[in-house]
Amino acid sequence: MRTLYHLWLSAHARKVRIVLSEKKLAFNLEIERVWERRPEFLALNPAGEVPVLEDVDGSILSDSSAICEYLEEVYPEIGLLGTGGHARAEVRRLIAWFDYKFDREVTQNLVGEKINKRLTGIGEPDSRAIRAGRTNIHIHMNYVEWLVDRRRWLAGEFFSLADIAAAAHLSTLDYIGDVPWEDHPGAKDWYARLKSRPSFRAILKDIVPGMPPSKHYENLDF
Amino acid sequence: MRTLYHLWLSAHARKVRIVLSEKKLAFNLEIERVWERRPEFLALNPAGEVPVLEDVDGSILSDSSAICEYLEEVYPEIGLLGTGGHARAEVRRLIAWFDYKFDREVTQNLVGEKINKRLTGIGEPDSRAIRAGRTNIHIHMNYVEWLVDRRRWLAGEFFSLADIAAAAHLSTLDYIGDVPWEDHPGAKDWYARLKSRPSFRAILKDIVPGMPPSKHYENLDF
Repeated sequence: MRTLYHLWLSAHARKVRIVLSEKKLAFNLEIERVWERRPEFLALNPAGEVPVLEDVDGSILSDSSAICEYLEEVYPEIGLLGTGGHARAEVRRLIAWFDYKFDREVTQNLVGEKINKRLTGIGEPDSRAIRAGRTNIHIHMNYVEWLVDRRRWLAGEFFSLADIAAAAHLSTLDYIGDVPWEDHPGAKDWYARLKSRPSFRAILKDIVPGMPPSKHYENLDF
Repeated sequence: MRTLYHLWLSAHARKVRIVLSEKKLAFNLEIERVWERRPEFLALNPAGEVPVLEDVDGSILSDSSAICEYLEEVYPEIGLLGTGGHARAEVRRLIAWFDYKFDREVTQNLVGEKINKRLTGIGEPDSRAIRAGRTNIHIHMNYVEWLVDRRRWLAGEFFSLADIAAAAHLSTLDYIGDVPWEDHPGAKDWYARLKSRPSFRAILKDIVPGMPPSKHYENLDF
């Protein structure tokens, strides 16, 4: 059986979970407490990070971008990168935008400070980082709105991995109630379309032990 | 003509320069002082980062991974990702390792602190960051040695974008004399093979204005 090692609020792992579901590939989930640095897990991924995918043939894959590109190549029936060099470059540009730029400027400052530090016991949340995250998120929400004003989905007229990457990050922030939806109605409309996809269902059922989600987290009409 | 917007010691831009040269695609280089936030450049890449590639058809591409994947798809004659899902996943895992993990743990702590802060005038180098970078680099050099003990190149028996990504980062650190080659002879042998490739030549001729390279930077027998 295919197994994905993940953590509840890892945006990169959520991206892979949604991709697997969109491609209708069945998988088991295993929680990996990466901070315990389990030797068996480090043997799978020396970077010590989730997600790690064990595919049906026993092969081990790590790094969320490498996993998603692998799934596109090995299971191409339902494609999520679009067609043609330019369209695919635009999808990949936006994946990188959310997985690295948004992650550094927003996700790490909010989910990283409030949740990951508590889970791993590595200290108190830094209030300066939280303030920075709360300021930065507006810039990115404006960018989402700018894009969906001009296109049906983030990277173009087609649903793609760019939407999945962005929504994976926003879903972790939404869990802790840190997305200012009311200020960004265009982004909210786009996210509502994603939230209602069957591939999102399992994400919306996630519960971090001891940390219940925000009230509207699971609500499709938020 | 094809144009690459870059900065002298941007490892991500160097990766694209080497890929273009390996693929024998001619290009002009334009220095982009990203900290000036030139509106015409932000219109090309709202992330405000190099590299940005303007291809021969006028299309604009940004994010170094998206650019490299685009070049693989549009100019496939000389391939740098290998063949088959598993081999390509291993190449991409290692590209991400160097472009994000190594970048965060080493490049930013050394080149970022010593050079980028000086170029952009955003403050003094942080000596704690520099110490962290000097400690962390050994872990990564050990990993390079572990890999090339078992494989001809980093990702397998074939030269790939993984070697290019790793060497791009190390070349920026070598410019400032911060690679402890003597402690890592296996990594040094691997890097010497890369340094002698024609695609590396232009990189070795780079001069950052007012900051000459370390003595052995250009030397093939270092």
